[in-house]
Amino acid sequence: MAATLESLESCLERHIPPEDLAEVKRILYGGEARKLNLPSAAWSAAQEGDFELQGYGFEAAPEQLRRPRIVRVGLVQNKIPLPTDTPVAVQVAALHRRIEEIVAVAAMCGVNIVCFQEAWTMPFAFCTREKLPWTEFAESAEDGPTTKFCQELAKKYNLVVVSPILERDEVHGGILWNTAVVISNSGAVLGKSRKNHIPRVGDFNESTYYMEGNTGHPVFQTQFGAIAVNICYGRHHPLNWLMFSMNGAEIIFNPSATIGTLSESLWPIEARNAAIANHCFTCPINRVGTEYYKNAFTSGDGGKAHHELGHFYGSSYVAAPDGSRTPGLSRTRDGLLVAEMDLNLCRQVGDKWNFKMTGRYDMYAEKLAEAIQPYFMPSIIKE
Amino acid sequence: MAATLESLESCLERHIPPEDLAEVKRILYGGEARKLNLPSAAWSAAQEGDFELQGYGFEAAPEQLRRPRIVRVGLVQNKIPLPTDTPVAVQVAALHRRIEEIVAVAAMCGVNIVCFQEAWTMPFAFCTREKLPWTEFAESAEDGPTTKFCQELAKKYNLVVVSPILERDEVHGGILWNTAVVISNSGAVLGKSRKNHIPRVGDFNESTYYMEGNTGHPVFQTQFGAIAVNICYGRHHPLNWLMFSMNGAEIIFNPSATIGTLSESLWPIEARNAAIANHCFTCPINRVGTEYYKNAFTSGDGGKAHHELGHFYGSSYVAAPDGSRTPGLSRTRDGLLVAEMDLNLCRQVGDKWNFKMTGRYDMYAEKLAEAIQPYFMPSIIKE
Repeated sequence: MAATLESLESCLERHIPPEDLAEVKRILYGGEARKLNLPSAAWSAAQEGDFELQGYGFEAAPEQLRRPRIVRVGLVQNKIPLPTDTPVAVQVAALHRRIEEIVAVAAMCGVNIVCFQEAWTMPFAFCTREKLPWTEFAESAEDGPTTKFCQELAKKYNLVVVSPILERDEVHGGILWNTAVVISNSGAVLGKSRKNHIPRVGDFNESTYYMEGNTGHPVFQTQFGAIAVNICYGRHHPLNWLMFSMNGAEIIFNPSATIGTLSESLWPIEARNAAIANHCFTCPINRVGTEYYKNAFTSGDGGKAHHELGHFYGSSYVAAPDGSRTPGLSRTRDGLLVAEMDLNLCRQVGDKWNFKMTGRYDMYAEKLAEAIQPYFMPSIIKE
Repeated sequence: MAATLESLESCLERHIPPEDLAEVKRILYGGEARKLNLPSAAWSAAQEGDFELQGYGFEAAPEQLRRPRIVRVGLVQNKIPLPTDTPVAVQVAALHRRIEEIVAVAAMCGVNIVCFQEAWTMPFAFCTREKLPWTEFAESAEDGPTTKFCQELAKKYNLVVVSPILERDEVHGGILWNTAVVISNSGAVLGKSRKNHIPRVGDFNESTYYMEGNTGHPVFQTQFGAIAVNICYGRHHPLNWLMFSMNGAEIIFNPSATIGTLSESLWPIEARNAAIANHCFTCPINRVGTEYYKNAFTSGDGGKAHHELGHFYGSSYVAAPDGSRTPGLSRTRDGLLVAEMDLNLCRQVGDKWNFKMTGRYDMYAEKLAEAIQPYFMPSIIKE
């Protein structure tokens, strides 16, 4: 898939005259997002570091009894900086350096919570179905080198870090998981959240490497709000978003790795729908670039063996509970998206639309329990 | 809300040059929908009848053991033809005539299943909170005049009719329901599906008139496929879509009545997300125009009493299980959208993406049952 458009939004901006553009943005995005006034040092550092920087803000109405709860989140998307056949430790070190550079800018922008892309310390090598060297990228969630690296960042910049890695679980036979480690701004590891739904689609052969997560739907009560992490393919499962929300999440991150031919037209829909349906903010993040592998592999589509998975199209964005959203980051460049939000908006929108109140979850709990029975009789009416 | 744009899609077509337009459509809509070659008699009848006609087709791959299951559905959106203070019977008769005119064109286009908008025989008067004359629009689902009218249409044109009305339930104390009546192409009433989720938002004071539906999630096995009806506000509830799908629905209609200021940026997201998440076709339909009421009413927003609810923005569309969709009908005109689909696409996309297989419904049935308990303890991790 050629990466011809820099981003959908820049294309719309370029071609649609101002009088129509406002209406197009209202219908497509719920309005024009407010641009944040970010420090000039941040803009120049981003330019120097050759990554995109964008900042947008969401508003909420003032309340009498609660003060605004303003939070800034940072979404980081990036290419792998080195070829996939570089030694593992060198690749990881290069990724640490790249992320350090971007997080420094996030800190300049006053970011309180930063989230990286899925399996950020490695190429997304599951397309190969090979074990070595890829499984060597797995680390302990509790005290692996990447967690230690993130703890330093968290303390240095006083921010919460969401760090999605390939986890090696030594306590349980050394198996692998796809896991997000959540690190408090104090530097302490708050906990981890494992990927609940594992894809078997296209070249995403992840079920060969790890199983469905067993950490449930934890919500992390940080100093800056209650957050949760729905990893990648869990984005397609509305119940996964729902349970994070039931546990009180106000911001749900969705670190992902997905390619153009597979999912690009689904990307703007699913996380945004989840923000609407659950009265919360959602933050889908996708990596960018094309990753090449030395050994050719086939893709289960009858095509010839080849060396690359396809184009990761970036386009990370933030969606708000009222259905509005930021533009997406670039489809081709590394980037940092800073979004400022007043978390009071979640309850305000909930009180307006009432989806939780009108959700009839008692009925669905019962119906779902019936529907999973092997001899379930669907409710079908025939003439 | 001014109805300034005729439709989002016509605006994009007008301004974006062809080389970018294809990419914009790929990202926004999953590609360029194939235009149907509809008979010229249909085009001229639509022009004469002053309503929009559009036709699009969705493809599926050929299979060895199943023949293509090609179905044409027709979505009808319309204004109320007469002022709301015209005598009830006269308004109903005018709506019957208008729909008759449009269904005749649907029949020319080979439509097999036609669906009308929510409460199609009346103005959407629930904003007034008055009972008379509005409750006089309610009819028996089984043998009211509108059901009889639809039975005639069904037999005459050999098509299934989905007819969403305000139902008077004489058997249970004469209460009201918001109900879709499904009529087989034989003319028989197949059954009914009541609105499962009732809004309490803005001027949609429907909970004053009727309660949450008690018909569950029935799927109607028609000659042309397994269909279900998710009425209006049920669109915001992912579990409602899910249960229709669990019961086997391949096409889920979503007859609605919703206005620009409230929901327009949500409209392209929710039904399309449901098509993706449930591997089925979804067909959201919204009425058009602005309806005026003789007695002024307030809107619970501190504003002055006024005579109209807002602009119903039409924009009816069809979304496919692969995430692609048709453009929307007009935001301002009556219209008929004809969509041809091969229902084999549902299983093909399901086998590709596997959301039902990877859905972990056992876990969610259990978690939901816990979450609804009065003393539920959310899964929250603190430092």
